Amino acid sequence: MKKSAAGTPLIVVSNDDGIRSPGIKALAAAMLEIGDVVVVAPDRERSAAGHSLSLSHPLRVEETSPGWYSVDGTPTDCVNLAINGILRRRKITMVVSGINKGANMGDDITYSGTVAAALEGTLLGIPSIAISLATWERFDFDIAATFAAKVARNTLEHGIPKDTLLNVNVPAIPEPEIRGIRITRMGRRIYGDAIVRKRDPRGRHYYWIGGDKLSHEGIPGSDLEAVESGFISVTPLHLDMTRYDAMKSLRRWKW
Amino acid sequence: MKKSAAGTPLIVVSNDDGIRSPGIKALAAAMLEIGDVVVVAPDRERSAAGHSLSLSHPLRVEETSPGWYSVDGTPTDCVNLAINGILRRRKITMVVSGINKGANMGDDITYSGTVAAALEGTLLGIPSIAISLATWERFDFDIAATFAAKVARNTLEHGIPKDTLLNVNVPAIPEPEIRGIRITRMGRRIYGDAIVRKRDPRGRHYYWIGGDKLSHEGIPGSDLEAVESGFISVTPLHLDMTRYDAMKSLRRWKW
Repeated sequence: MKKSAAGTPLIVVSNDDGIRSPGIKALAAAMLEIGDVVVVAPDRERSAAGHSLSLSHPLRVEETSPGWYSVDGTPTDCVNLAINGILRRRKITMVVSGINKGANMGDDITYSGTVAAALEGTLLGIPSIAISLATWERFDFDIAATFAAKVARNTLEHGIPKDTLLNVNVPAIPEPEIRGIRITRMGRRIYGDAIVRKRDPRGRHYYWIGGDKLSHEGIPGSDLEAVESGFISVTPLHLDMTRYDAMKSLRRWKW
Repeated sequence: MKKSAAGTPLIVVSNDDGIRSPGIKALAAAMLEIGDVVVVAPDRERSAAGHSLSLSHPLRVEETSPGWYSVDGTPTDCVNLAINGILRRRKITMVVSGINKGANMGDDITYSGTVAAALEGTLLGIPSIAISLATWERFDFDIAATFAAKVARNTLEHGIPKDTLLNVNVPAIPEPEIRGIRITRMGRRIYGDAIVRKRDPRGRHYYWIGGDKLSHEGIPGSDLEAVESGFISVTPLHLDMTRYDAMKSLRRWKW
C-alpha cells in the first residue's frame, strides 16, 4: 500500500460478492483514476447479509495483494475494519461499494450487503456510494464502472448531505441504449411468497426461501421504474427512517 | 397449535436473542391476552444480524413445543418462514418482535435483528412492532411486556400506516420511576472506534470490533433522549429511506 500524496483522495472499496468478484475489480480500477484505492472486502460471497456486524467473534484479515484486504466477515465488518482498524490513522475520502451482480432497488436495499457497506461508511461519517448492475445474467461492468467514477468525481466536488448515501443502479443494456440518468426515490417490490418445503436425503424436512422478485408497485419516479425504462438510477438514501407524518396520530392513541 | 376462532387475532412473535430467551417468553405470554400466538424464532442468539435473509441454504424448523417453532436462521428468515411457510394458509394479524435484551435506538436500528424481524413483517404487509428493554444488566421484562400488550391493542384498534413499523424502547427502571410515553424520532449514536487487534494462541493476528456506544448526538425528541430521561419511546419507522430533500440538488450535478 503506497502512502497517499497530500490531497490525493483515499477511497475504500468494498462489496458483498466477495473480493474475487469481477465487479469489485472493475470498480477498484475505475477508482484508481480518482485517487488511492484500498480494497477491504469479504473473502466470499455475502449477498443478502443485510447490515450485520460481527461482534461475538474475531475477524481475520489477509492482505492478498498490496492494498487488497480479504476479511472473513460481512460487508459491514469490512468497512468498519477499514475505517477503524486497517486505515485508522489515515483520512478516508470516500467509501464505494460494488459493483454488485444484481440490482439493489426498492426494498432489496434493506437486505443488501452492497448498500450495507455504504451505510456503514455513512454512519462513520464518510461520503459513501453503492453501485449495482441490474442483471443476473450477463455482467459487463464497464458502463457501471465508468459511471461509478462519474458519481465519485461529483461527490468529491459537491459532497453528499450528512447521514445520506447514494445508491446507484445501472441497467444491463448496451451503452447506446442507456437513455440517461434519473434521480429517483426508493421503490417497492412485490415479492413472491414461494417457499420450498422438501425432504433431504435423510428424510428430514427443510424449507428454502424463494424470494422471487415478481414485479413492483407502480411508484412514479422510483429506482425500479427508472432502470426498467433504461435509465441509470441514483437514489439518495437517508439514515433517518423516522416516519414524521405518523407521529401526530400516534400521539393521539390512548397510552 | 389450536385453530383460531374467527376474529381472534393471530400474532406471530419472534426475536433475535433466540427462542430460549426470557424476553420472548414474557412477550408471548403478554400477547396471549390479546389473541392466538405462534412463536417462530432463531434457535440461538442472532443479535446484530441486521436484515439478512438466508437464500443460499435450506432452513430447519423444529416445533419444540406446541406453537413454538425454532429455526436455524436469522430473525428475518423466521418471520418470512412464519408468514409464507408455517402459517401460509392463515391470516396473520400482527408481528411482534422482542423483548430484546438491550435498546434498539438511533442507528442501532440498522443493525438490529429485533427491528429486522418487524421490518420483514412490514415488508410482507403485516402491522409489526419491535420492543426492546434498554439495559445490558438486569432484565425485568414485566413492564416492557405489559407495555407491548398496550401497543398491540392500540395497533389492533388504530392500525399502523402502510410501510411503517413501530419501534418501542422501554427504560430499565422501576415502574414508579417511568415518567410516561414519548412518540420519538430516530436518534443518532456516537460510536467508539475501538477495534482490538491481538494475536491468537497460534500467534496469528485477529481483529475484534468493539462497537462501544459512547454517547449520542443531542437530537431533541429522539428515542435516545426519551429513554435516557425515563420515558418509554415509540418511534414510527418508514421503509422508504429516500432523502427527498436531496433530490433537487442531485439533479443539478453535471451528469
